[in-house]
Amino acid sequence: MRNIKLTIQYDGSRYKGWQKLGNEDNTIQGKIEKVLRELTGEEIELIASGRTDAGVHAYNQIANFHTNSKILNKEILTYCYKYLPSDIVIKSLQEVANDFHSRYLAKKKIYIYKIYNGTFHDVFSRKYSYHVPEQLNIEIMKKAATIFIGKHDFKSFTALKSKKKSTIREIYSIDIVKKDNDIQIALNGNGFLHKMVRIIVGTLIQAGLEKITIEEIIEIMHKKDRSLASDTAPAHGLFLKEIIY
Amino acid sequence: MRNIKLTIQYDGSRYKGWQKLGNEDNTIQGKIEKVLRELTGEEIELIASGRTDAGVHAYNQIANFHTNSKILNKEILTYCYKYLPSDIVIKSLQEVANDFHSRYLAKKKIYIYKIYNGTFHDVFSRKYSYHVPEQLNIEIMKKAATIFIGKHDFKSFTALKSKKKSTIREIYSIDIVKKDNDIQIALNGNGFLHKMVRIIVGTLIQAGLEKITIEEIIEIMHKKDRSLASDTAPAHGLFLKEIIY
Repeated sequence: MRNIKLTIQYDGSRYKGWQKLGNEDNTIQGKIEKVLRELTGEEIELIASGRTDAGVHAYNQIANFHTNSKILNKEILTYCYKYLPSDIVIKSLQEVANDFHSRYLAKKKIYIYKIYNGTFHDVFSRKYSYHVPEQLNIEIMKKAATIFIGKHDFKSFTALKSKKKSTIREIYSIDIVKKDNDIQIALNGNGFLHKMVRIIVGTLIQAGLEKITIEEIIEIMHKKDRSLASDTAPAHGLFLKEIIY
Repeated sequence: MRNIKLTIQYDGSRYKGWQKLGNEDNTIQGKIEKVLRELTGEEIELIASGRTDAGVHAYNQIANFHTNSKILNKEILTYCYKYLPSDIVIKSLQEVANDFHSRYLAKKKIYIYKIYNGTFHDVFSRKYSYHVPEQLNIEIMKKAATIFIGKHDFKSFTALKSKKKSTIREIYSIDIVKKDNDIQIALNGNGFLHKMVRIIVGTLIQAGLEKITIEEIIEIMHKKDRSLASDTAPAHGLFLKEIIY
């Protein structure tokens, strides 16, 4: 049995997210499994590093699958490139040890959130960047970001409803860079809860607009109540950048 | 009578180009004139620095129009932003002297052509960059570009059919920059004939693929025969960058 690891780039705009939902076809997982099934004649089950929500993009999503097929790696890659829609590309493919697991073995995840901070939106990035027309104060955003660094209970910053699962995660760094009207927020952590990146970014935006203070964010973190935190920033600005094993 | 100058950004993907064609609505000029007509109650005629072909994009197209309307500049801008489709944005607006003419007074034009030179296409730039999968030799492309610098008869490098009009133009510079898989070609000249930028880029690509030599390009230039030059590079990689007055 072979274990094959894929590095996948996708434009999430027209998909309901990574995870296959019943018979529905408009998910990234569904599209790739279909092509692999047609190629190998086997039922393929892709294991990804994690789900991405509807509309979220990926530069380097990682997924693996097991197969008995003897088709050459290069042929799998070429076939996928030919038959996948143009908004999903398998960039590379490697045969890995049988116990490699994309989700369980992921050590760090890096997400990028893009904001366009100009009066009018930019036509070329309008599908890949969140347009905030009011001037954002970057220095305050950077200060607010430090609150999230380290090991914390992110219960106030997730849409996760389960009461059983741990909401403790560690964020290693949040880097905010501004170039002209483009702002990029890079978040590096050992894992992120459901919608956690987008709720943190929503909070940083409120801080940058000076609608919430540093002290208020600290208080929200301590109260562990999602209803207190800011709105979730929209999906189209979010990119899964890298998974580190 | 006021003369108003517009700086316009557009994603040309879904349009038949700048120029209005009879009753057809799917042109950039047609879209903007319609919104200005609704706002002012006047028949507005936009004069652009030049036409862009179907599928070609613009960062800073310049156009002007005359109006008797007394509506404030800021209100015109806000109204256009609200009612234009999201792939056309009027970035700024200025009142100019009555004799300002976007086309006649243009001194220099800068175009950018973008190429993605990776084995597989990039999903995020696929609509804004021409994908060339075979490795391009940038040094040869740079050498080939020098042939076009200066004042030349570009008859071999235009789709222009008229025999009466001059096909002599001057190109001041062609800068080719490669960063990872992205190649940008910036062309700066006093004017460009119909499809001239895309035929020159098509020729530079053939040179980069080593399918045509420097000597052959020089010969094609001398023979003044369009049928000898390379194919026209596709529209979706081309951006009108700047007009200098």
